Amino acid sequence: MIPPGSTLGILGGGQLGRMTALAAARLGYSCHVFAPEPDSPAFAVARHTCASYEDRAALEAFADSVSVVTLEFENVPVAALEILARRVRVRPDATVLAVTQDRLAEKRFLEARGFPLARYRDVRSREDAGRALAELGDRGVLKTTRLGYDGRGQRIVASPGEAAEAFAALGGGPQVLETFVTFEREISVVTARRADGARASYPPVENRHEHHILRTTLAPAPIAPALAREAVALAEAIAEALGVVGLLAVEMFVTGESGLLVNELAPRPHNSGHWTLDACPVSQFEQLVRAICDLPLGDPTPFAAAVMDNLLGEEVHAWPRLLAEPGARLHLYGKREVRPGRKMGHVTRLFPLAGGLTR
Amino acid sequence: MIPPGSTLGILGGGQLGRMTALAAARLGYSCHVFAPEPDSPAFAVARHTCASYEDRAALEAFADSVSVVTLEFENVPVAALEILARRVRVRPDATVLAVTQDRLAEKRFLEARGFPLARYRDVRSREDAGRALAELGDRGVLKTTRLGYDGRGQRIVASPGEAAEAFAALGGGPQVLETFVTFEREISVVTARRADGARASYPPVENRHEHHILRTTLAPAPIAPALAREAVALAEAIAEALGVVGLLAVEMFVTGESGLLVNELAPRPHNSGHWTLDACPVSQFEQLVRAICDLPLGDPTPFAAAVMDNLLGEEVHAWPRLLAEPGARLHLYGKREVRPGRKMGHVTRLFPLAGGLTR
Repeated sequence: MIPPGSTLGILGGGQLGRMTALAAARLGYSCHVFAPEPDSPAFAVARHTCASYEDRAALEAFADSVSVVTLEFENVPVAALEILARRVRVRPDATVLAVTQDRLAEKRFLEARGFPLARYRDVRSREDAGRALAELGDRGVLKTTRLGYDGRGQRIVASPGEAAEAFAALGGGPQVLETFVTFEREISVVTARRADGARASYPPVENRHEHHILRTTLAPAPIAPALAREAVALAEAIAEALGVVGLLAVEMFVTGESGLLVNELAPRPHNSGHWTLDACPVSQFEQLVRAICDLPLGDPTPFAAAVMDNLLGEEVHAWPRLLAEPGARLHLYGKREVRPGRKMGHVTRLFPLAGGLTR
Repeated sequence: MIPPGSTLGILGGGQLGRMTALAAARLGYSCHVFAPEPDSPAFAVARHTCASYEDRAALEAFADSVSVVTLEFENVPVAALEILARRVRVRPDATVLAVTQDRLAEKRFLEARGFPLARYRDVRSREDAGRALAELGDRGVLKTTRLGYDGRGQRIVASPGEAAEAFAALGGGPQVLETFVTFEREISVVTARRADGARASYPPVENRHEHHILRTTLAPAPIAPALAREAVALAEAIAEALGVVGLLAVEMFVTGESGLLVNELAPRPHNSGHWTLDACPVSQFEQLVRAICDLPLGDPTPFAAAVMDNLLGEEVHAWPRLLAEPGARLHLYGKREVRPGRKMGHVTRLFPLAGGLTR
């Protein structure tokens, strides 16, 4: 057990790292944030090192200053994690990252273990791209295998010719073509897992995207209890199969014909879990701290229903109105530069749950 | 209006400063903490200056780095506040501190404006002490006028001889003798006030002390609605009379004969307001940030009833059990040294409010 008073290492300095550091502080931990960007939002609330993930000396000094390392950004180079792991526990570890950093590796991992996912093809060339679309159907989504998020590195394609063009437009590197899934809704489950296998999952939530960026999360998702149980079981089974220590967010499609299909995995706090800060006894960020420190996991049962809206780009300027709205919980990330689509903050509104306040 | 993204200055580095910095971070502010103690709990979560309140150069550099200064500790020397005030807004200001740092000044202030308080006498000598007790009744509480907290600097006395001895034992400096008040309960109100006079108050809570240290807060206090309204009105009137910008905590005795009597004022976040972190849409710490930045004050209506227990000294070692208790909200302050009676953390438990979740 890593007791309160210890220092936790966080790779990545964005809002997820910032909110993790705030949750850690609430439990009496100190944090040390490692990130390459000088303007990192998490730097303001913890000790920090601003250095490249290739800087071995900086990584080693960081490792020696902390009791455990976690991450808020899954694209940390595996080589950096391996340098750290020779000196300190890294949770989740490099084997988890190796799978979740690469769409193809992730899909193969899921497929090999029998988890449900949309059909896909490995694409290495223009020819592959065209052929893959012809095999998979009318429409597909071509995605780079690495470094895609918030819709970057992906194109919807509707003909073999379009697929070949998109392959080039996406840079010509390793890609995956997925069948275009017609879904009823997108949901996600954030599950926490400790090294001893103990686990706790927040209820599934529904996510609504705009231009591939999360716009709104409805918590809990308005789905049948049996489907919610199935989604939680799926997320927990994937976390177990991956051996995640920390958090795993599992994005899924709810489809009419094929039931649940796994879309994407993220072994870290997730935007779709921000509502837990205001509607659960223990937030996803505190849960991450508990999981990596071998503490008892917290109760993930919400005491209220919640609607979480991201504040994207210029929307952040609504803050005076949101502060004046009774009951609105405003969170701002301290980012100086407003860019279109950039996640600047979020606001959560609570509603009574059927059954009322449970804890 | 001081917008999110600005840097707030906090004088004092204890848990109140730490929790203020965490609340400020949630709204996108950065903080700069100024405190003389190298081990200050708030240093871990913000930029900080470790220097004496007599260090003019350090104070000036601090003032120049922030948009507004507040405090978590009311015994900051007034001279330090005046140095700061020549360069930056200080909220609350030195005139508020001059009253609340000195028990005699505070009592005279309250008395002159007609606020109810227990009878008292100014005590400057052994003779004064004995005479004052003879005038006030059977029992009294002799208190130093400055720097008393958590029961330090006070003695209960039951005879003129005891009063004279206690005067010497308390150091022989300026003191106040108060009538010993037999009360039904002790309550407090935390009220927020903006520079334009806008205000918002949390409901009165009941405080139970042990060895003069806050043990437990029950929120809301189990008192009649009319008395609760009276207590809130009293706290707001005192905040207005003092011209506080920020928070004012008003401790009161509920007595059978004399109704409410004001006991003590604290122009800062207060231990009896910690429950607001878990049971209100906006905590006392966020409310302080809103008040000093001229933001809309938040809704102080609780969505749950709460019982807050301090973790004093060795009690902090119960943290593994508390983390495992469903629904218990644990807060630890990151203090390294455990000393008897030292406030190491607190735990809040929520209960349904009559009327259920309101926001």
